[in-house]
Formats: sequence, C-alpha cells, structure tokens
Amino acid sequence: MSQILVRNINILTMAGPENIIENGEIAISGDKILSVGTSGSAPKDFKPELEIEGEGMVAMPGFINCHTHAAMTLLRGYADDMPLMEWLNKRIWPLEAKMGEEDIYYGTLLACLEMIKSGTTTFNDMYAYMDKAADAVSESGMRAVLSRGLIGAAPNGSEALKDGINFVEKYQGAAGGRITTMLGPHAPYTCPPEYLEKVMEAAEDLGVGIHIHLAETLDEHRDIVKQYGKTPVQHLESLGLFNYRTLAAHCVHVDETDIKILAENHVGVAHNPESNMKLASGIAPVQKMIETGVKVGLGTDGASSNNNLDMLEEMRTAALLQKVSNMDPTVMPAYKALEMATAGGARALGMEGIIGQLKPGMKADLILVDFSAPHLMPQHDYYAHMVYSAHSADVKTVIIDGELVMQNRKVLTIEEEEVIKHVKRCVKKLLS
Amino acid sequence: MSQILVRNINILTMAGPENIIENGEIAISGDKILSVGTSGSAPKDFKPELEIEGEGMVAMPGFINCHTHAAMTLLRGYADDMPLMEWLNKRIWPLEAKMGEEDIYYGTLLACLEMIKSGTTTFNDMYAYMDKAADAVSESGMRAVLSRGLIGAAPNGSEALKDGINFVEKYQGAAGGRITTMLGPHAPYTCPPEYLEKVMEAAEDLGVGIHIHLAETLDEHRDIVKQYGKTPVQHLESLGLFNYRTLAAHCVHVDETDIKILAENHVGVAHNPESNMKLASGIAPVQKMIETGVKVGLGTDGASSNNNLDMLEEMRTAALLQKVSNMDPTVMPAYKALEMATAGGARALGMEGIIGQLKPGMKADLILVDFSAPHLMPQHDYYAHMVYSAHSADVKTVIIDGELVMQNRKVLTIEEEEVIKHVKRCVKKLLS
Repeated sequence: MSQILVRNINILTMAGPENIIENGEIAISGDKILSVGTSGSAPKDFKPELEIEGEGMVAMPGFINCHTHAAMTLLRGYADDMPLMEWLNKRIWPLEAKMGEEDIYYGTLLACLEMIKSGTTTFNDMYAYMDKAADAVSESGMRAVLSRGLIGAAPNGSEALKDGINFVEKYQGAAGGRITTMLGPHAPYTCPPEYLEKVMEAAEDLGVGIHIHLAETLDEHRDIVKQYGKTPVQHLESLGLFNYRTLAAHCVHVDETDIKILAENHVGVAHNPESNMKLASGIAPVQKMIETGVKVGLGTDGASSNNNLDMLEEMRTAALLQKVSNMDPTVMPAYKALEMATAGGARALGMEGIIGQLKPGMKADLILVDFSAPHLMPQHDYYAHMVYSAHSADVKTVIIDGELVMQNRKVLTIEEEEVIKHVKRCVKKLLS
Repeated sequence: MSQILVRNINILTMAGPENIIENGEIAISGDKILSVGTSGSAPKDFKPELEIEGEGMVAMPGFINCHTHAAMTLLRGYADDMPLMEWLNKRIWPLEAKMGEEDIYYGTLLACLEMIKSGTTTFNDMYAYMDKAADAVSESGMRAVLSRGLIGAAPNGSEALKDGINFVEKYQGAAGGRITTMLGPHAPYTCPPEYLEKVMEAAEDLGVGIHIHLAETLDEHRDIVKQYGKTPVQHLESLGLFNYRTLAAHCVHVDETDIKILAENHVGVAHNPESNMKLASGIAPVQKMIETGVKVGLGTDGASSNNNLDMLEEMRTAALLQKVSNMDPTVMPAYKALEMATAGGARALGMEGIIGQLKPGMKADLILVDFSAPHLMPQHDYYAHMVYSAHSADVKTVIIDGELVMQNRKVLTIEEEEVIKHVKRCVKKLLS
C-alpha cells in the first residue's frame, strides 16, 4: 500500500473557489487521500515511503475527460476539414471497419499516454473491442468508464448488445476498481426505440448507466423531430431512458424545455467544445445548462475530431467560447471552467465524492502542475493561470488511485517508444 | 556570419499546400536562407559551421504574432472574467499608469522568452517606453515591429506623438535590421481626427506604417457611428488613414462595405480570436475577409486578455472558431490557418517576401517542431497535426535572422531565471 507525501505545494482542492492552500501538503495512503492541508498537517504517525517536493508547483484533482473514443488516436489527422457525413462515410467508418483487437489495444494505449501526459486521470470511453481497451486501461494505471458502442440499426445490433452486456459483466470493477462500465447505445438516430428498450432492460438488470451521443448536430435534431415529433432529448425522455443514470455527450441543439428535462432527470452532459467547433456542429448552451442545474462535465471527443485529448486546452476553449457566445466576459470564470473539468465531470459521471476533488477519503487522483515556466509568470491567480495560460507540458507528475503514474513527465506504466512503434505498424496495416 | 545546415527534416515551406519536402534540408548563410530542398540539395560548396539533425521534426517558418502588447505579461492573470471597461478602468489602466522603464524592459523580455519558447520569431508590438522594449527585443534575438502607443485624447497626447516620432527615427532598422517601427495611434475612439491627421503627417515624413486598434467592440462601433456618422473602418478611410500602410488590430465589427474597404486599401488585419472571445468582443468575420482579399494575420493581443502569447494555440482557436461561426467544417482548413499565422502575417505587416515562408533569399526565421510525442502520433497529415494537435512545448529549436536563439528548448539569448526574478520584483513593486 503506497504512502506518499506531496509537500510544499500550492493546492487547488476544487471544493470551492476559496479553497486554495498555499504551501500545503497532501498525504496519500493506499488508493485514497488521507489528508490535505497546510504544511505539517499530515497525521503525526503518517510514514511516507515517497516524498514529492512540490515547490513551484500546483496540485489539483486530475482532469476527467467525460467523453472520448480513445482508440481513434489512430485516425488523428487522417481526415479533417470535411463535412460531417462525408467525413464519417468516406473516411472514418471505412477505416474503423478494418480495425481489430490489436488496433484498439495500441490505439487506447496511445490515448492513455497522451491523456496521462496532459493530466487526465479518468476518461469515459465508447468504442469497440472494449476488452482490449480495458487491458490498455488496466496497464496504464488510469481510471476509466468503458462502454461498448452499440449501433442498434446495424445488422449486428443484437450481437453488439450481447457483447456490451458481457463486457459489463466481466469488467465492472476491474483493475482494482479503476474500471467501471456503462452500456453505450450510440445515439437516438442510430438506435431505434425498440433497441433502446432492450438497452434499458439490460441497464436495469446490470445496475449500470448509459453513455449516449445526444443532440450533436442540427441534422440529428431535424431527423428525430421528423421521425418522432419530438426533440432528441424529449424523445429519449418519453422512452424512459433518463430513468437510468445517463451520460449524454454533446447536447448542442437543446432548447429550454430540453435543458429543464436534462436537469430534472439528473442527466450528466459531456460538453465537447473543440469537436463541436471543428465539425461545425454548433455551440452548446453550457452556461444556460449550468444555470438550470444540469450536471455538465467536459470531454475531448475522439482524437480524429479534435485532434488531441488535451483537457487543459479543452477547458480554455470551453471558457472562451461561452464568453463570446453569450457576449458576456463574466460568464464561465476560470474557477467554473476548472470545476467543469474536474468536480463537474465527476458529477456528470455519477462519481461525485469519489473523484474530482482533493478531500480526505476520496481517491488519490491528482496532478502536479509546474508553474515555473515563463508563460505562467508572474502569478496573480492560480485559477486563471491554470485555465487561460497553462499547457499540457506543464503537468509534471500524475498520481492515480494512489499510484505514481507519471513522474517528471516520464510515464512509468507504459513503454512510450514501444507503443508508438506498434501504433505505426497498426496504422500502416490499416492503410494498406 | 553563421552557416547552418538543418538536415533530415520534413519541411513545410508555406509557399503553397503542396510544398511539403520530406527528409529535406535547409542551408542558412548569414541572416538568410540559402537553399531549401530535398536531402543533398544544399550547394556543394556550402560549408556549415553547425549541422542540426532534424529527424522526427518538422521545419516551418516561425510564427508571426501580428498584434500584442508584450510587457502586459506583467499583468497576466491580474484581472480576468470582467466586463471590458471595468477591467480597463479599475484594474489594467491604474496598474499600467504605475509602470516604468524597468517594468517594460523585463515584461518585454518575459514576453520574448515565452514567444521564443512557443515558436514565434516576429511580433508586432504597441506599448509605452518603447526604447526599453527595443532593448529587450535586441537582446532576445527576435524580430519585431514596434510602435509607441498614442492616446490622442490624453493630456500628454502631443508629447506622446513626439516621443513616438523620436522612437521611429532612432529605432527604424535597429538591431541589425531586426527592429522596424510604426506609429501607434491607439484607436479611433481614443484618437480624434485632428490627432490622426498629425499621425498621418508623421507617417508621410518618416515613411513608416500605422498600427491601430479598429472595430474591436460593439461599443466602439456604436460610439464612432454616433459621433462621426460612419463605421470605424469608414471613418478612418474618410480621414485618408488607409493611404498609409496600416495594420488594424481586431476588425471584429466590420460589415461587407468595411471589408471591401479593407481589401481595396490593402489594410493588414490582425485577428486575435482568444482575446476577442475572452473579452466577449465578438467573432471577426475572418473567412469573409480572406475571401474578399483582405490581408489577415494572426495575433495574441496582450497576455492580460489571452492569457498567453502562444500562436499554436491561437491558430487552432482561429480555425475552430471560423468553422463553428460559419457552420461549415470546410472553412479555414489546416493549411489556411497555418498560412494566416506565417505568410499571412508577413503580408499583413508589409513584410511579404522577407519573412513568413522558407524560400532562398528570405530571412532565416524558422522553427523546428518535434513530432515525436504521443499527441502527434500517428502522422497522417503535417498541417493538421501542426494546427490541431501540436503544443508550444513541441517547438524544440528556433532560428531567427540566421542565429540559433533556442536549442532543445533552451533559450540561448536570455537568462530565463534572471528575468523571472526581476519580473517578480517589478510586480511586487507595482502592487505595493
């Protein structure tokens, strides 16, 4: 059981904007935070095996990426600047159809490498061959919520659901609890009502939540309204889907009624601003959702529509985009943006009180960010610097589940060069 | 005279999207590029003093930051998430009023450090105590266009203009030609017509261009229309200001007539998306400007409204913002965004053919970007990776005016720790 003391560090606990501890220390015992406080506040009988000097650094909860498709790293930069359906039909889907277990394994490992190096400690993933994704997560030391993507309208829809159910049964609580699972019906426009009924039955039986894309594009909105006479959100509500814990990705095209429904049903929303911008899907009314009480977290979406998995960047973009789209610079201040990327993400994923804040008893998922580079000087405001100025390369050390996963930018759990070699090989094969 | 050979490198010359040279080499002689081509293409009699191995890296022209206030690094994170006029009146202007020569010197050095470390080789600056800014630029090895900011409506307006003229006379062509100058009337709402007339007279006498803020906010637009019965752009045109080479920063609130005027008068526009978003100024119609033939470059604005000077980030935001605001993912593809940050910036600043591309005879201002990190794997598309995936920390080596300014992320011209020490001291004094 690891015993780590991080000392002489400035701490953003994310338990409220005033909760900044300067020159503090964090004691970690096993997979949990034992204490967080000023210098000398760790219990007198705490005997750390490892002491990490934090001078010049800021500690905060690791980022929670609420929506991604990790193995899509393999398609990073493969197709860009194209209309969505052309992008999917002509480029992404044909290549995805060729992907096998090995691709998913190495693609996910590459994603984990990138995420760890940019300070993400938990991610919510939806893709295929998820047992291989789980293997990668397990090795990487990361925490993840995994779901097998289900296209109900596809010929293998029923088979996929069986597969998704098997995956939940096998992997819920795997990797010492770091892996949890959900069911992953892709979207209302790819999963007809009768299919979603079956997914709900399975969610009931298994006691797990549902991860779904929702109201991402205007086309989806129009199609669902045309087919069911309801907005995508109202369509899912009428099916009773929100009776199950739901993480809905995107929610770009939602009106006031939709937003109220999302809030009242405690639906978690994953906001993915860079993907929504890059695919020109639109600007989600995040400020309005938060004001209405919707649990909004932040996500990067897959690397082929972003094109990286960098939560610091995503957070900055989210804040700036809300300000300009609301024509109000006071909207989404730095603390709120940072909250969305940490504690807010935990709430959206139903993991409140477990991750997303630095508090005794919570999982020891934290990052140490070096604030000594020129672009972080001088230091008037830690929150503003973290949101508006910091880069992923400033993340120096990552601890997940009490284990040191990256130290001084060296990822300790994954052989970086080895993974990159395999990724290149996989991609060469996919393109041949 | 330095003789440098960069070899085994992938080259983006920015002389057209097809102009990618894989495994190429760049010969640098003195301050200029001697040759750019495939491996072995350097002249046979070229005797490099220094050879830089470029394997795994991508060479491209250094970024051109078309609009900033370098020494505002001192105010980074000092005031955020506030309405523009409150931000200026209550926070920024009172502190700026206390700034002296030493603050400008160290603030500009800090900015140069940050800019070099994020791959910027040229910047266009407007601020006060510009002789101190020039000293910093001279030491840093950077290329810069400097102008003393002029508030015509201020009590010291005339004095400032004299100062601005003296500055041009003294510094045009300084630092071996790395420093050029402009006159810097702040904005149409701070410089009345009679003042701008005097600025134009000086521009005529001195043969230099004009750097001005233009059409940044809706308030400015309303006020100028109210006062002069014309939009800000049409107001300046009617005064004849565009008869002088002009770099107009922002141009957020411009209509079709304005855009035509900017194009016909060859006005350079500095687009600053992150500042415009953060201050909720609005979204500049960049795509329309480019289509109409306006020379658009990219800028960060000052570090207190951004809050960094990172052109890679700015470029990504610019591309994503144009896509979503035009509801078209094909708008501003990666190459176009990269062009705006390099060759486009050179055009906007009237430095076309001198910087912004890698071509024989042009200034040797280039950066080597390491493409070996996980977030840049695999490599389907250099342009997409540079714009959508790369981070400033991937910039490994910077050459400006033929001189090695950063090698392996170590800035060779500025004592980083020393500057940061002085910055902290200056800020402490400012806040006391």
